[in-house]
Amino acid sequence: VLDGPGQLLRRNALLLAALAPAPVLAQAEPVTPSSVVAASAPGEWVEIAPDELLVMELAPDADGAPREVVIQLLPPPFSQSWVGNIRTLARAHWWDGTSVYRVVDNWVAQWGAGEDEQGKAVPLTEGLNIVPESEYVVETLTQTDWCGDQACPKPDLTVGDRPINSPYAEKEGFNSGWPLAANDTTIWPTHCYASVGVARDLSPDTGTGAELYAAIGHAPRQLDRNIAVVGRVIEGIEHLATLKRGTGDAGVYETEAEHTSIISVRLASELPDAQGPRFEYLASDSENFNRYVAGRANRSDEFYIQPAGGVDICNVQVPIRRIAAD
Amino acid sequence: VLDGPGQLLRRNALLLAALAPAPVLAQAEPVTPSSVVAASAPGEWVEIAPDELLVMELAPDADGAPREVVIQLLPPPFSQSWVGNIRTLARAHWWDGTSVYRVVDNWVAQWGAGEDEQGKAVPLTEGLNIVPESEYVVETLTQTDWCGDQACPKPDLTVGDRPINSPYAEKEGFNSGWPLAANDTTIWPTHCYASVGVARDLSPDTGTGAELYAAIGHAPRQLDRNIAVVGRVIEGIEHLATLKRGTGDAGVYETEAEHTSIISVRLASELPDAQGPRFEYLASDSENFNRYVAGRANRSDEFYIQPAGGVDICNVQVPIRRIAAD
Repeated sequence: VLDGPGQLLRRNALLLAALAPAPVLAQAEPVTPSSVVAASAPGEWVEIAPDELLVMELAPDADGAPREVVIQLLPPPFSQSWVGNIRTLARAHWWDGTSVYRVVDNWVAQWGAGEDEQGKAVPLTEGLNIVPESEYVVETLTQTDWCGDQACPKPDLTVGDRPINSPYAEKEGFNSGWPLAANDTTIWPTHCYASVGVARDLSPDTGTGAELYAAIGHAPRQLDRNIAVVGRVIEGIEHLATLKRGTGDAGVYETEAEHTSIISVRLASELPDAQGPRFEYLASDSENFNRYVAGRANRSDEFYIQPAGGVDICNVQVPIRRIAAD
Repeated sequence: VLDGPGQLLRRNALLLAALAPAPVLAQAEPVTPSSVVAASAPGEWVEIAPDELLVMELAPDADGAPREVVIQLLPPPFSQSWVGNIRTLARAHWWDGTSVYRVVDNWVAQWGAGEDEQGKAVPLTEGLNIVPESEYVVETLTQTDWCGDQACPKPDLTVGDRPINSPYAEKEGFNSGWPLAANDTTIWPTHCYASVGVARDLSPDTGTGAELYAAIGHAPRQLDRNIAVVGRVIEGIEHLATLKRGTGDAGVYETEAEHTSIISVRLASELPDAQGPRFEYLASDSENFNRYVAGRANRSDEFYIQPAGGVDICNVQVPIRRIAAD
């Protein structure tokens, strides 16, 4: 098979095509996650509200290239007291001039007030919610109320040969584009790759939202119900995931030079219309979302020979895309 | 709570301690993953054979710091035809001068013969095994034979309140330090964060091992049984996970300058004694390994208020540590 560099290059080119996010294949036309998304109707997509988008501009990279990270904030009923704090802090431009000060491999990148920010004033204290731990989850009663005006979670969603089977919860499913977990009495948002959460002190502290982290490795589900999930990075997670790992205690950078400066953090709703990014997600209660999940659980892309028969909730990767400017 | 920078710093310092891999706490002494490891007996650890360790030296980083990646190869009975190829290629110094040519966020970093290696001769073809797809798994019969001289997999291992519950397999568990999945007839190695696999062409090609990838995001379990797992990065995964993501097709770098050169890849068994790194893992059939898994499933570190009641197999993170030089 490997009888010369030419062969090797052809082989390599095929491999790359195969492992890539699959383009819609003209010939075989298997039902793949990508083909489902391509076949979805415009009406199956929901635009994310501009005040649920946070745009974080990091200092340019070593080559001078800009680094923009877009975070989608969790919608009601989850974590809204922290999300409110985050909107307050963004409107006050509170993060401008802070930095990413801690990065731990297969764990988190963390930013906001850090050890280099000793002189930074902390305004807005009186305007921030102090949130009880009970808000890490939502009671079933609230969930029922919440289901009045939109599709309910589908905690018994089955995909392929078996349900979304999890060691972390009795039930898991999606609602409004978010991966959720539940038991009989409560429902909560999950930590997946790129999830954004609120750093906190020891219990009963729950953090304010001034210090945030993004998960940059295997889903740290053990943090569910222990710390507030407030959103997820929907564009630019690589700008956090590629940062140098810290070598100080708990992965904090040991020198000022290692920090990555945060130029600004803004709600998209505060940016001039032409500058605010717009995004939409494939609705969780759409026909094609269910087909998409089934496709993720049983890959039939040309590359795959053995469908898994299931998928964990963090590996579904809800389709989210930019809305092109008019 | 946040009434001044001093308060903030104290709060922050506590947070950092709390989110860190927990040190053994003198006062409360909860049973944590770290405390279990600290309490383990020397006899519960197994040294990894030097010919199961591959040392990959990447070109120094932008600051001139060395970048060493240590890979543990899978032991029998899994993937041994590919592992044999990898030993053959390492002994021939085949990877020296190749590069990391493809990096995709939350997916893989891939190296070996790449598009920049057009002139590279491909020796050893006749010495390499061409492996059938049937070797992605091991038949139960072989598993039974294999269990003759070491502890068998524990596919029904339960942790905490519920079993290792997976959407990807009927059963999952650990053997000889490796996370495995199984159904009634076959057993196979799983793709977790830092797993190393063999890039391949479309079926029925299975790859040789000359081109390898490491998983750098959420466990890509959909690749299980579709591509050969041959090992895992046990030290230095951050040197791959922090590499710039490629912007060409399928995440291949578009320019030569973006590639990361591979200086050398050597089996530890071929290095002079003083240079070869030595590692050991906590035996899967040891009492403290079971306690460790239970601790991962039900975190009782000071930071946690709500134990998860379970853990997915890729989140267990088998304890592996360096053996200090004599």
